[in-house]
Amino acid sequence: MTQSIKTPEWVKDAIFYQIFPDRFANSERVTKPSNLEAWDASPTPHGFKGGDLLGVAEHLDYLHDLGISAIYLNPVFQSASNHRYHTHDYYKVDPLLGGNDALRELLDAAHARGIRVVLDGVFNHASRGFFQFNHIIECGKQSPYLDWFTVKSFPLNAYDEKQKPNYGAWVGLHALPEFNTTNPQVREFIFDVAVRWIEFGIDGWRLDVPHEIDDDSFWQEFRRRVKNANPEAYIVGEIWTPAQRWLEGDQFDAVMNYVLTQPLMSFFGARTLAPLWHGGTYPPAKPMNAPEFAQAVESALSLYDWEITSAQMNLLGSHDTPRFVNMVGGDRSALRLAMLCMMTLPGAPTIYYGDEIGLSGGYEPESRGGMPWDRSQWDVELLGYIRGAIQLRNAHAALRRGTYRTLLAEGEQLAYARELDGERLIVAFNAAADPQTLHVPLAGGGSPRVLFGEVQEITRQDAVVSINALSRSGVVIALQN
Amino acid sequence: MTQSIKTPEWVKDAIFYQIFPDRFANSERVTKPSNLEAWDASPTPHGFKGGDLLGVAEHLDYLHDLGISAIYLNPVFQSASNHRYHTHDYYKVDPLLGGNDALRELLDAAHARGIRVVLDGVFNHASRGFFQFNHIIECGKQSPYLDWFTVKSFPLNAYDEKQKPNYGAWVGLHALPEFNTTNPQVREFIFDVAVRWIEFGIDGWRLDVPHEIDDDSFWQEFRRRVKNANPEAYIVGEIWTPAQRWLEGDQFDAVMNYVLTQPLMSFFGARTLAPLWHGGTYPPAKPMNAPEFAQAVESALSLYDWEITSAQMNLLGSHDTPRFVNMVGGDRSALRLAMLCMMTLPGAPTIYYGDEIGLSGGYEPESRGGMPWDRSQWDVELLGYIRGAIQLRNAHAALRRGTYRTLLAEGEQLAYARELDGERLIVAFNAAADPQTLHVPLAGGGSPRVLFGEVQEITRQDAVVSINALSRSGVVIALQN
Repeated sequence: MTQSIKTPEWVKDAIFYQIFPDRFANSERVTKPSNLEAWDASPTPHGFKGGDLLGVAEHLDYLHDLGISAIYLNPVFQSASNHRYHTHDYYKVDPLLGGNDALRELLDAAHARGIRVVLDGVFNHASRGFFQFNHIIECGKQSPYLDWFTVKSFPLNAYDEKQKPNYGAWVGLHALPEFNTTNPQVREFIFDVAVRWIEFGIDGWRLDVPHEIDDDSFWQEFRRRVKNANPEAYIVGEIWTPAQRWLEGDQFDAVMNYVLTQPLMSFFGARTLAPLWHGGTYPPAKPMNAPEFAQAVESALSLYDWEITSAQMNLLGSHDTPRFVNMVGGDRSALRLAMLCMMTLPGAPTIYYGDEIGLSGGYEPESRGGMPWDRSQWDVELLGYIRGAIQLRNAHAALRRGTYRTLLAEGEQLAYARELDGERLIVAFNAAADPQTLHVPLAGGGSPRVLFGEVQEITRQDAVVSINALSRSGVVIALQN
Repeated sequence: MTQSIKTPEWVKDAIFYQIFPDRFANSERVTKPSNLEAWDASPTPHGFKGGDLLGVAEHLDYLHDLGISAIYLNPVFQSASNHRYHTHDYYKVDPLLGGNDALRELLDAAHARGIRVVLDGVFNHASRGFFQFNHIIECGKQSPYLDWFTVKSFPLNAYDEKQKPNYGAWVGLHALPEFNTTNPQVREFIFDVAVRWIEFGIDGWRLDVPHEIDDDSFWQEFRRRVKNANPEAYIVGEIWTPAQRWLEGDQFDAVMNYVLTQPLMSFFGARTLAPLWHGGTYPPAKPMNAPEFAQAVESALSLYDWEITSAQMNLLGSHDTPRFVNMVGGDRSALRLAMLCMMTLPGAPTIYYGDEIGLSGGYEPESRGGMPWDRSQWDVELLGYIRGAIQLRNAHAALRRGTYRTLLAEGEQLAYARELDGERLIVAFNAAADPQTLHVPLAGGGSPRVLFGEVQEITRQDAVVSINALSRSGVVIALQN
């Protein structure tokens, strides 16, 4: 199997920006119904703020300036939920988002700037309003679509939430009827949706809870269809755990790399970790020191073939988690360091919209706030730091595709090398609250030059580079011959 | 107002065939789900038989041979009901019918044969699965679409049929939420649907219960939009009563002419009328003699401007009624005579699918049986008679566009003249159970020649044509100079 593993080249060079469409930006060109929630009010479970895809298109310059090269959009298809994971119609972009025409404009404008767009594919479950499920609610045993879902008795109690659903429903939620993916017509339906949007021009699918369709042959065929339509389409699964089963080259290209997210919080946020948030989507967390973190990184990087590893979707948080800054008790230094670390590790970094300007928020719905466009509300220093880290990654192929090697891991000190084609970079962190000197052992020659970060002094003596590091700081150094 | 009344020219020459899409013909080219009702089993309220639009396209030769020039299709949009009056999505032809592509093929094939296609527009109410209504079910007070419907309290009790619906619902049916057509966005939505399908190529709209949208300005704007997209598009309302309000030239072109249907049953079916059926959609009926019938016809023809009258949609029955043959106690002679009468009166005759081969059926769902395509089940004599009457109308413009004048109305004897541009036709009926001689008074000269129907003898003496008519017979005579 191994020799055939192939992932999209562009992903290895990509920096993603994740957008929750109802909350990023609102275009005046999309007519909206009247009953919307205020943009800056606290998000609620069922309220809509009216963000749309033309709003995204109108802010592509912002993303381009930030150095973003790909967008991962949370679901955009017609749905009666603000997160749109309850799909009503897989062939229509939601009218609140501007419909299919708005996605057309967004794709064209993004592609013109070299920015790719990946959609969220929610194929395990539909919604109660989804046609074929609604058909069974309405027609009962006489619906031709009985075998599209798993119905245990009639009539369906879809809207009687006092009883357990008498049909297959995701985590027992009435609102999320699960497809019967053993039905060949259902499989064809899902494959057709997947291919139709690839042909429309999207650059890949992020797959929601794909392990729930517990059937390798399903995802193998899914991959064949999608790659046949576009060999460079990205297929990335939402799997929170090690995921070898799906990453042997015949199913997904990558997963959302929560396996790395948790050490990033535990190390850079060790001093301020907010254990309150754990136990939601995250397992209980405890602080990590540098040796534990280096171990976790090496473990994460060794799970899969390098083709996969360098195309992983790395992230600090998402719509499914509290924002990173909330996970680390509000400490923006932890966010900065984790961002720099993510920008210097193998795998495509992903920024959850607003993290770069200091937006905060706990578990949903709080983590899905309206993006403020009044810059007086932004942490411009944070934004500048993150933009710099992004530009650094974009400028140095070694950070994207180079080998990884831990150089130093002691207490709160960490350093690692990234090397490619003779380019040798050192990334070093002092996570401590006080200035410290890092003694980074190095093979080979070359004099150090700071590419990113403030340091007091760097000296090289034989096989050791000594870095007088500020408190809570990171630095990227090039070794030049 | 009167001088501006204008209706489509083609309708005045058209003979319609009404098709209930789930029941007319089933193409092997449309993939169907598994759980379908047997084609020849008695129809049930919620069962699907799997007829589709490619099936219609594949039987256009049959319709063309019959002499049909237009099709009125019962609703075709995605719907979780076999009649599809519960619309789930106005922009999609139902997948069971073959989807939008099947309508494309049907339209192209029909137009190639000179056959026009009118769709059923169900704009007063949607369904519980319709996106914006489902949205309110799912999101409650926080749905942006609250003002698309008339919601009285929350949560919606859409699926709790033990309570009355707490929202505007057609005739109190939970399944049929009524649009709030005072909302400009709802109006635009409906107008957009109407125009979109006209632009797709349909030839008009039959409007379901349009009086329920009790707003002249709505239908005036509807007409402007539709006629702007295609000035020859036909707009015909389902209004069962005299309908002057809508037929002044600024709303509809015509209505379904049930005002004429009822006399046709009462006169030609006088001997066998099945009063059992009345009290459903029909008012209580009693038999009519010829003078009463002639009076009813003249009254019906005088209701509107001639432009309207000659574009009325005449019919003997529909999906909303028992079939005509059932209304008249199974007497096919009544069906034959009524067909001939409809083919010789002003207004576009409409044949409800299967009536022409003797298909029977009471109130719904019985009147919506599967069309048998095994010709051994057909009444070929009836079919031949009706085909002849159709061909007669198609051959003689006087029957379509000529003036109407009652010549004789006594007992069970009826005769009327249709004249146009010097062509003078006499239509005569002996509805009695025995042979009778009709003495038809005539002004002007000309010797009689039988165009249609069997008669024993016709003689002319001065201003009277005497017709020795067979029992239960009709004849059409041309007067030639």
